[in-house]
Amino acid sequence: MKDKFYQYIQNLQDQICKGLEDIDGVAKFREDIWDRPDTSAGLSTGGGGGRTRVIENGAVFEKGGVNISAVQGKLPDSMQKLFNVGEADFFACGLSLVIHPKNPMVPTVHANWRYFEMYDTSTEFSTGSRKVINSWFGGGQDLTPYYLFEEDAFHFHQTCKTACDKHNPDFYPKYKKQCDDYFWNAHRNEARGIGGLFFDYLKETEDQSMGDWYNFVTEVGNSFLDAYLPIVAKRKDLPFTQEQRTWQEIRRGRYVEFNLVHDKGTLFGLKTNGRIESILMSLPPHVQWHYDHHPAVGSEEEKVVKVLEKPVDWI
Amino acid sequence: MKDKFYQYIQNLQDQICKGLEDIDGVAKFREDIWDRPDTSAGLSTGGGGGRTRVIENGAVFEKGGVNISAVQGKLPDSMQKLFNVGEADFFACGLSLVIHPKNPMVPTVHANWRYFEMYDTSTEFSTGSRKVINSWFGGGQDLTPYYLFEEDAFHFHQTCKTACDKHNPDFYPKYKKQCDDYFWNAHRNEARGIGGLFFDYLKETEDQSMGDWYNFVTEVGNSFLDAYLPIVAKRKDLPFTQEQRTWQEIRRGRYVEFNLVHDKGTLFGLKTNGRIESILMSLPPHVQWHYDHHPAVGSEEEKVVKVLEKPVDWI
Repeated sequence: MKDKFYQYIQNLQDQICKGLEDIDGVAKFREDIWDRPDTSAGLSTGGGGGRTRVIENGAVFEKGGVNISAVQGKLPDSMQKLFNVGEADFFACGLSLVIHPKNPMVPTVHANWRYFEMYDTSTEFSTGSRKVINSWFGGGQDLTPYYLFEEDAFHFHQTCKTACDKHNPDFYPKYKKQCDDYFWNAHRNEARGIGGLFFDYLKETEDQSMGDWYNFVTEVGNSFLDAYLPIVAKRKDLPFTQEQRTWQEIRRGRYVEFNLVHDKGTLFGLKTNGRIESILMSLPPHVQWHYDHHPAVGSEEEKVVKVLEKPVDWI
Repeated sequence: MKDKFYQYIQNLQDQICKGLEDIDGVAKFREDIWDRPDTSAGLSTGGGGGRTRVIENGAVFEKGGVNISAVQGKLPDSMQKLFNVGEADFFACGLSLVIHPKNPMVPTVHANWRYFEMYDTSTEFSTGSRKVINSWFGGGQDLTPYYLFEEDAFHFHQTCKTACDKHNPDFYPKYKKQCDDYFWNAHRNEARGIGGLFFDYLKETEDQSMGDWYNFVTEVGNSFLDAYLPIVAKRKDLPFTQEQRTWQEIRRGRYVEFNLVHDKGTLFGLKTNGRIESILMSLPPHVQWHYDHHPAVGSEEEKVVKVLEKPVDWI
């Protein structure tokens, strides 16, 4: 499963980068291949690595990253606590993307699809005969607009729902709610964005084999460009003012706050000796913090804030 | 002691704000008085509050805050763990400041002086007859330059040392080292700035009464303007380029990373239901994150980074 899924995200990275480059029309992704230095768990092969792809200063995209990585080793203490397990070896691979467009009318998007395996440490790591004691999928995709176009929110969620419904009618409402819960900027008492899907610990059950979960997770992965690109196409050439741009940069500040204070993915990367520049590529290019900023009553800016105060059923 | 120290930081706030306004020449601090809503521990008086003062868009200071607060209540679970105690009531008051100048030649400065008391919960909170089971002072001041002027680093540290030496010749080396240790941006493997002083848990001992600690902490508080203003005066009118400004904004990103990922003061504020805008006034006004940015070899920018890789003995 790990090889099959890693193959999938390699292909998906190519596909997504191509889709984004095509609509940008100017900038190309630059690629960095990196190794994760780790000799724990007696790994002769090291601790894995990744393929980071970053786009900057495009016509449409100001900054964005579409990264894959596959890392393995001894589960760090902090992660043992998080997973409530003792000593274990782990393997984790995934694709993670964050795209910050230049035009404040185009929403920021985030997506991630990942697979995790844990092994009994008493079995041999290097021979491939390790005993998998646990494995699961996780991931999702979510949208963060700076100005609200309800039809865009509807389109994004409808695409998520269509992908989910092919597998189970319960999935969309369940993972939509988990997304609203997860991307909650608790200290601000508001959502990071208008949500989408978030799922984690998708493990084998009586109803769902790991193969079924693979099919579901890749279905969502395949829906990403359909969910996002039509919105980009519709909004990328809208005019905007310097004030609207300032508003976007202030809201990007909330994105930074969520990622650095609350996001478990960022935490996982920092704690497992991940590549800092690949983890923090999610941070926006230009950001502002004003003291005690509030949008004007009745403004378009206030409309977005209102929507973030309480999750909306977009469908 | 708590009333005496709170009186001190109220006066110090006035003094520091006046010193900063005078050198700015244009902007004035705006003041927000706030209450902390908290009915825990049966407090009839609520949970305290504070006086936040923020300066924005000055001639010299782009954004800065000089805040005092005094909060009390039931110690939250997360803080019980941090202090390794069970249920307790607490009182905390302090002055906290962060100043972000416009000109990249002028360093950012941070300072904080605080006093903490913990009470036996079996005693009555509202009558003033609570039993203090523990009390301590904490604080310090530290400098974050974007360009290195060694004479400024020396001046700042010399002022810190002079204040310390009046009390104990061991204090400067000890609290200088603690500052280097505390303001370490572990995920970047570099210091946030060039340090200064950091002390915490200054409790009564055979050698030092709480009165002695009060004298020491207020000595440091009184030294703040002497440590910082001469540097501001010397650098505020130096010319700078757009590239130097960009470098400043990129480095401010590291400041944000430290404050949101590592800073215990920020964490304490977020966990004890502090006023978010007062806590996060420390975040810089304009910030940039570039992917995998490195200063040119041999440049002035690289000189700063080198100095941050390993603490320097400035004196």
